[in-house]
Amino acid sequence: MLQAMRDDEKMGRITLAQVAEQAGVSLSTVSKVLNGRQDVATRTRVKVERLLEAHAYRRTTRSASETPLIEIVFHELESIWAMELIRGVENVAKAHGTGVVLTESGTRHAPGPDWMEAMLQRRPLGVVLVFSTLPDEVKQQLRARSIPCVIIDPAGDPDPDVPSVGSANWNGGLAATRHLIECGHQRIGVITGPEDMLCSRARLDGYRSAMTMAGLEVDPSLILFGDFHVEGGYDRAAEILSHPQRPTAIFAGSDLQALGVLEAARVRGLRVPHDLSVVGYDDVPIARWASPALTTVHQPLRRMAEEAAQMLMRLRAREPVSTRLELATSLVVRKSTAPPPEN
Amino acid sequence: MLQAMRDDEKMGRITLAQVAEQAGVSLSTVSKVLNGRQDVATRTRVKVERLLEAHAYRRTTRSASETPLIEIVFHELESIWAMELIRGVENVAKAHGTGVVLTESGTRHAPGPDWMEAMLQRRPLGVVLVFSTLPDEVKQQLRARSIPCVIIDPAGDPDPDVPSVGSANWNGGLAATRHLIECGHQRIGVITGPEDMLCSRARLDGYRSAMTMAGLEVDPSLILFGDFHVEGGYDRAAEILSHPQRPTAIFAGSDLQALGVLEAARVRGLRVPHDLSVVGYDDVPIARWASPALTTVHQPLRRMAEEAAQMLMRLRAREPVSTRLELATSLVVRKSTAPPPEN
Repeated sequence: MLQAMRDDEKMGRITLAQVAEQAGVSLSTVSKVLNGRQDVATRTRVKVERLLEAHAYRRTTRSASETPLIEIVFHELESIWAMELIRGVENVAKAHGTGVVLTESGTRHAPGPDWMEAMLQRRPLGVVLVFSTLPDEVKQQLRARSIPCVIIDPAGDPDPDVPSVGSANWNGGLAATRHLIECGHQRIGVITGPEDMLCSRARLDGYRSAMTMAGLEVDPSLILFGDFHVEGGYDRAAEILSHPQRPTAIFAGSDLQALGVLEAARVRGLRVPHDLSVVGYDDVPIARWASPALTTVHQPLRRMAEEAAQMLMRLRAREPVSTRLELATSLVVRKSTAPPPEN
Repeated sequence: MLQAMRDDEKMGRITLAQVAEQAGVSLSTVSKVLNGRQDVATRTRVKVERLLEAHAYRRTTRSASETPLIEIVFHELESIWAMELIRGVENVAKAHGTGVVLTESGTRHAPGPDWMEAMLQRRPLGVVLVFSTLPDEVKQQLRARSIPCVIIDPAGDPDPDVPSVGSANWNGGLAATRHLIECGHQRIGVITGPEDMLCSRARLDGYRSAMTMAGLEVDPSLILFGDFHVEGGYDRAAEILSHPQRPTAIFAGSDLQALGVLEAARVRGLRVPHDLSVVGYDDVPIARWASPALTTVHQPLRRMAEEAAQMLMRLRAREPVSTRLELATSLVVRKSTAPPPEN
């Protein structure tokens, strides 16, 4: 890493004084911009950032008392995904002897300005963002300071401008549904995620393709959009299970939704898997601990985070990286699926 | 915070050159010790640290480009507790505008030397450690550098030397058992944690006291030590449920063990809570998502972490802090408990 940084510096030839001169501002203003201070007019900031970027400005080597950090930013730590992603980044950080700074900030669409300011002062090696898209302003600020960033995007809606890591949602939906068909199910309900998330759509399309390829009818009244949470899974399952022609299996779209389906079945006195088969999605630890343990689609969250952190390291070293990496999903068969009950 | 730091500096009057002179070593050796470098003989390091501590040495104010950090260290991030604790520290960090550095390091008994070296270079505001005890050497290294540390100790076995935050385990065990007694149960099994953890003993003693105070017999064959994991809960429950005089309720000692009990009941065709009542412990999110949702003892993990981080801030400001803070636990009644079945 250090070697790579030294090489980088040879490429950046401009001094801050030169940037200040070209921008027609004081050196202290340039320094404020670099440090992410908010007391600089936007127009001035953008002008300075453009110059920094155009000249590929890089900071000089860190002082001996500073240690390298990788930042990981979530918009919500509440997510069941968060722990697995943290562990993935931590694994790579440990191997490279760097620390991991963790922040919860902003909305689903962008980290907040507070984080940006603090992060710029910390001068991390790079940033892993668990967001689907980034505002142009954020991208510009990172680029101007040569701070590489990678998006982990389990939602499957990558920003084409930023390197990102996701997983194969369509294939996951296909594998889940095929497994149910192979068990002998023909009438299969599906609860996917929110309508406005691409990963929900991809999983649902995988379901449709598996049904169609097996010559099975897709009954639109058995297709519901959920919210990826337990309560949503419960409500949708209650709706599906009160259908006059109740399905013998439900592909639940997420493990949390599958837990809701288990509860809806229990309340109705339906035994899983004897009366109803259930497949989840994600394979977070609770999938294994459910009663019965969930058959589910493994989304390699930890590996996705490891890949993202490794991409950062390669970006630092100016090595080529893929713009979009999509890791394979795989079916994990446990105890919540079985052949349908005999009529 | 900044004000407090400036006050601190007035108290520390020794320079590094004076420390070097008194220790009979070079200034660069003193600097190596301060930065946690490992290429210093242990005897020299200890001598320098003692002098630093004796003279209450404090570093000078941070440079403007450095931002304050709080460190949180786990020996394993796998733990179901980790996420809640991270969120608690993050909440306080956000309020103080500091970053959170997260590390997984070492064993159950101490963080590793790698972490120590990197942490000393990061110069955090303070350290929250999720360990039960700390080796004297680690305490000494932190003390010599005036880096405050607080232990979060859900295991209930606090190091008397270091400020720590735990929760009221005995009261939790009492509340769980009293609730079952109030439901009408008389024959109550208990699966507590590992025999060598104080929190397991405290919860079990709470159970015993509740039974004794209600005039109920404690059957030693219904008391089992577990491992706080799902599989252990399953195995112990299988043992208890095959008892010739099967209990009508089990206090499971942790939510994960309670999930194992639910599965053992399901496999035997026992309905929870109709045939068997189950109480967990911890109230981690999965307790709410179990089927049926678990009645459990809420251990305020997030609040414990918030308290620990706030204690750090008070220690920085040289305000008095308690050596040991024990937060209250509380019973959360959900759907896994009911009156016993009629004979």
